[in-house]
Amino acid sequence: MFPSVIPDCDPTISPRLYHICMAPVSLAVLVGLSLLVKRKHLHRSCWNGVPGLLSPANFLEEEGNRGLVAAVFGILFSSLCVLVLDRDPLPFITHSSQSNREYWKILALLYYPAFYYPLIACATVRHRLGYLVGCLLSWCHCVVHVWQKVDCPQSPKIYRYYSTLSYVPIILCLVLLSLWYPALLIRSFTEQEETLDKEVTGRGYYKKYLKAVLSRRPRKGSSAKIEESLLSRVRTYLCSYIYTPEEGFRIPLKLVLSITTAVIAVYQVALLLLVAVVPTIQIVRAGMTKDIVVLLVQFGLVPSESPAVPGDMEKELNTVKYYLWALEVCYICSLVLCCLLTCAMLLRTLVMHRNNLKALYQGAVLDVFYKAHILRPSRQAIVCWMSFAAFQTAFACLGLLIQQVIFFICSVGFTFLFVIPLQNGTNTYLFKIIQNMWPFWLTLVVAVIVQSLAAHYQFLEQHPLRKELTNRRALYIVTYLLFPINVLLGVLAGMWRMVISGLYNSVHFCQLDISLLNRSVETFDPGYHTYYHYLKIEVSQSHPMMKAFCLLLLQPARPEGPPELRASNVEEGIQLMQPQKTPPSRTRFKQSRARWWLAYTLLNNPSLTACRKTALSDPTANGTPLSPPKP
Amino acid sequence: MFPSVIPDCDPTISPRLYHICMAPVSLAVLVGLSLLVKRKHLHRSCWNGVPGLLSPANFLEEEGNRGLVAAVFGILFSSLCVLVLDRDPLPFITHSSQSNREYWKILALLYYPAFYYPLIACATVRHRLGYLVGCLLSWCHCVVHVWQKVDCPQSPKIYRYYSTLSYVPIILCLVLLSLWYPALLIRSFTEQEETLDKEVTGRGYYKKYLKAVLSRRPRKGSSAKIEESLLSRVRTYLCSYIYTPEEGFRIPLKLVLSITTAVIAVYQVALLLLVAVVPTIQIVRAGMTKDIVVLLVQFGLVPSESPAVPGDMEKELNTVKYYLWALEVCYICSLVLCCLLTCAMLLRTLVMHRNNLKALYQGAVLDVFYKAHILRPSRQAIVCWMSFAAFQTAFACLGLLIQQVIFFICSVGFTFLFVIPLQNGTNTYLFKIIQNMWPFWLTLVVAVIVQSLAAHYQFLEQHPLRKELTNRRALYIVTYLLFPINVLLGVLAGMWRMVISGLYNSVHFCQLDISLLNRSVETFDPGYHTYYHYLKIEVSQSHPMMKAFCLLLLQPARPEGPPELRASNVEEGIQLMQPQKTPPSRTRFKQSRARWWLAYTLLNNPSLTACRKTALSDPTANGTPLSPPKP
Repeated sequence: MFPSVIPDCDPTISPRLYHICMAPVSLAVLVGLSLLVKRKHLHRSCWNGVPGLLSPANFLEEEGNRGLVAAVFGILFSSLCVLVLDRDPLPFITHSSQSNREYWKILALLYYPAFYYPLIACATVRHRLGYLVGCLLSWCHCVVHVWQKVDCPQSPKIYRYYSTLSYVPIILCLVLLSLWYPALLIRSFTEQEETLDKEVTGRGYYKKYLKAVLSRRPRKGSSAKIEESLLSRVRTYLCSYIYTPEEGFRIPLKLVLSITTAVIAVYQVALLLLVAVVPTIQIVRAGMTKDIVVLLVQFGLVPSESPAVPGDMEKELNTVKYYLWALEVCYICSLVLCCLLTCAMLLRTLVMHRNNLKALYQGAVLDVFYKAHILRPSRQAIVCWMSFAAFQTAFACLGLLIQQVIFFICSVGFTFLFVIPLQNGTNTYLFKIIQNMWPFWLTLVVAVIVQSLAAHYQFLEQHPLRKELTNRRALYIVTYLLFPINVLLGVLAGMWRMVISGLYNSVHFCQLDISLLNRSVETFDPGYHTYYHYLKIEVSQSHPMMKAFCLLLLQPARPEGPPELRASNVEEGIQLMQPQKTPPSRTRFKQSRARWWLAYTLLNNPSLTACRKTALSDPTANGTPLSPPKP
Repeated sequence: MFPSVIPDCDPTISPRLYHICMAPVSLAVLVGLSLLVKRKHLHRSCWNGVPGLLSPANFLEEEGNRGLVAAVFGILFSSLCVLVLDRDPLPFITHSSQSNREYWKILALLYYPAFYYPLIACATVRHRLGYLVGCLLSWCHCVVHVWQKVDCPQSPKIYRYYSTLSYVPIILCLVLLSLWYPALLIRSFTEQEETLDKEVTGRGYYKKYLKAVLSRRPRKGSSAKIEESLLSRVRTYLCSYIYTPEEGFRIPLKLVLSITTAVIAVYQVALLLLVAVVPTIQIVRAGMTKDIVVLLVQFGLVPSESPAVPGDMEKELNTVKYYLWALEVCYICSLVLCCLLTCAMLLRTLVMHRNNLKALYQGAVLDVFYKAHILRPSRQAIVCWMSFAAFQTAFACLGLLIQQVIFFICSVGFTFLFVIPLQNGTNTYLFKIIQNMWPFWLTLVVAVIVQSLAAHYQFLEQHPLRKELTNRRALYIVTYLLFPINVLLGVLAGMWRMVISGLYNSVHFCQLDISLLNRSVETFDPGYHTYYHYLKIEVSQSHPMMKAFCLLLLQPARPEGPPELRASNVEEGIQLMQPQKTPPSRTRFKQSRARWWLAYTLLNNPSLTACRKTALSDPTANGTPLSPPKP
């Protein structure tokens, strides 16, 4: 049971070597891809193309590669977990001194996102070369990580297998990436460009959303709702905790990211909590000697029948070991419960996010917020939007920690005050107190029952349609006479208030869509504040209906599009810009009218302007609709 | 400093003698007053008068003697506090055994309300004899209590003066009563019966309320509200915490009671917390010897320059005494802070109650509750109404306890981690940690500032009327690169969330008008649940407008009323029941029309029926309006 000294293990590819090789490669890939993007646009206009820096992911557009982006964020977060506890946070510098370590950690916080940047950027280029480079890079990373961990599965840090286990999410995410990129590459060869483009740019989703919204019928009859039984209501309630994908609606990318990293956070924190405590308890249990037992008996922590003599303490030693085992069981049980609860709450939060987003898309602001608000970007909203996923992750970590502390204390209390006394018949303090206090509890129960019965049969006049107060004099007398007993009931109710608010807040700590404060001050809660502003940006900037409208507006600007697209355009009633086949005078009139309409629409919906930018800067676009029309 | 043994003290009038004498007197007074009430009504109809039991107070009617009722409830609650800690809870039985004490306590819970019943009932009889008896009784109680405490100011329980100090609220309330009853008696002789009756039955208040509502003009201009400065807003916010009486509106009696008993509860709990801890700390400080100091130095709790030798520890002894003094100061400071905070919150709760009641009187249910509700009595509502004042009292006790625990821990932490290290230069662990971590804090601050500035100047297009997101690619890149740092910021935000929700909930624990849970589940909080149901009863049963209307309806039924009342009746446009001076045929027609109107009103407002009951049972009342009118 005792830990043998784990020898320092040097993997064939040391982390230092790995980073020294891969960091320049990553940089080269980034530069190469930037040039590739430039080159693609160079033939149109020399320097006015898309700027060189690659976007990691278009968070506000609906894209195809959601799993890929989530995997890279998972790798990033796991690296953060590893580096926070590491002695050499920056792999280039080994054996850093205590004083410099802080600086290296800060530098590492910026280094790792840059290091993994090419993994995410290769997909956003939407070019075969990008997919190929992504393939090679992800395979390379994956092989190196797996090789390192096969070489050196044990390390002396915290627990022998902690390092390996904490790398599991990174390796899994890398495996996902090294399967995703080949799939993208193969699809870019086999499938038609148009289908691919449609799926990648999310145009398909917006159309699906439109169809789902337009075809929706109010299915839930109000009469059916009233009649449903308790069982079905419970089932509905439980189902509201389970997220099931819905036709025509997709959770935004940022939320997918936040939930992914939150789940990885739960794994990492639970792993740390497990390996930091359980092996220690096991070591203590194995190394328990009779001398320590004598001390514990003398302190009164362990019951003993005979006076404390170190010679014959076999029974007491077993008791102590049994207690330690119970402690370990409590710890593991509460940890499992916490993880399950946190994951359930994260699932629940997805359901809540979907409901909130759907309500806000439909303009029902008061269904989501307590007060009416205008949903438009602001400085604070952008800052909150940027940090939303990170906050969700951090809150999941902290929530798990808080829950573990509370549940562990509760389970230890329950075990040592109820279960063990019931088994052994020792330490029955609590039972004695309960036994002494039974008349008190009985009085309180009787008082509650008497008040309820009196209220029902004496003080309430029952009519079929109305209920009315009666026997007021008796009501006043009972109120006065039962005042002292009600104060004692109030003390119990107050304790329940304390317990339920504490439990509710700790269980829902990881949910950002719920404020832990009262509704009048709910935005003072930093979690809810972030969520509230996040929703503002998300709804104002990536409303699917608006996106679908913008896409339809932009389609005729590309005459190289296939004819069926133009046909569907006419079908859906968007005739703002007719193809130039009508005679010139009529065309001129129609064009100016279309411009007027467009200008009017844009004035009333300023958030659409941003979506039109690329179309406006594009020289093939149809005129300058925002300039005043010619008379 | 050390407590000398306090001799057992036998007062001239022992509690046993006092209760043995006063209990039969109280019973006799009750019976006598009941007979008096009977006799008053006997000459009208033999046994159909008001039933014999006296009402303690008409909680749902507006009455004059609010201070008197509050004083009796204060006495009741203080007696409860005394009896919970007492070894002889029931004064008749001295030296009760441990096993029986529980039963006596339960019996005492019912005995004390009955014992003080006549003190409250003498005023509700509204008869000179009642006032006289009340005078005598309150004087008697007051004199006995003062005499007992003058005889025996010290007792061995908890602290020598604890018993005396805990009786202070009882004596003050009794003094109030023994001044109130003579005043009532004198007024019953000097003032006119009509004026007295008007004030006592609250008719005056209802008229005032009506006038205030009808004469109210919307004074607050919306333009003035926008322009007000920060200073005036802060002033308005602070004023919202201070309750100032308002013309034409009175807080209902139950709320006055609950606040009175809650304030007494704060006094009693604070007193107990003070005398249970502070004298003990003082004793420990005075009895500190060098031997104990050596132990403390060896445990590392007290810093020492020299090795621990019991001979020369003068300096360390002084340090330990200084630490104990600091502990005492922290305890007293946090207790004072808690009391002030709790009282401020109780004042604030009064303001909230008034706002909520005014909103509900005007029908603005959604201003008070999160969802729309029908305000009418139910079984649960009656039970909650009965226990409201008791719950408020108990919550004030518990809230003070919780606050004291939290603030004491915080102030001790602050003192021993900040103040003492700054004074002495020892135990500077925290400063060292902060010093080591400054690059980390600096990074976080810089990250926040960079994100804010970038959001303001780079990602937000500033137009005079609209704000729009721009530079999306850069926004996505910054979001990706700052993800790890934002996770660390999120951990800090999560801690702040924990602290702020804990502090908010502990500070607002004594407020029943605030739910400590999220708005979607707010009625699961037992405090808010009680308040919510209490409001239902209060608004549906004692709406001042309804009461004023009922009183106007009932007035013409008494032809012996003075003529100016009838004149004001006509003035206010209530012509439902004309005095019978018109010719009989016209009277008959008018009467039947009036009955129709009345029946219609009552059908649509069933809660009015209860108020009409006495009028209906009264044989001099004008007809039977609920029977179908003759054709």
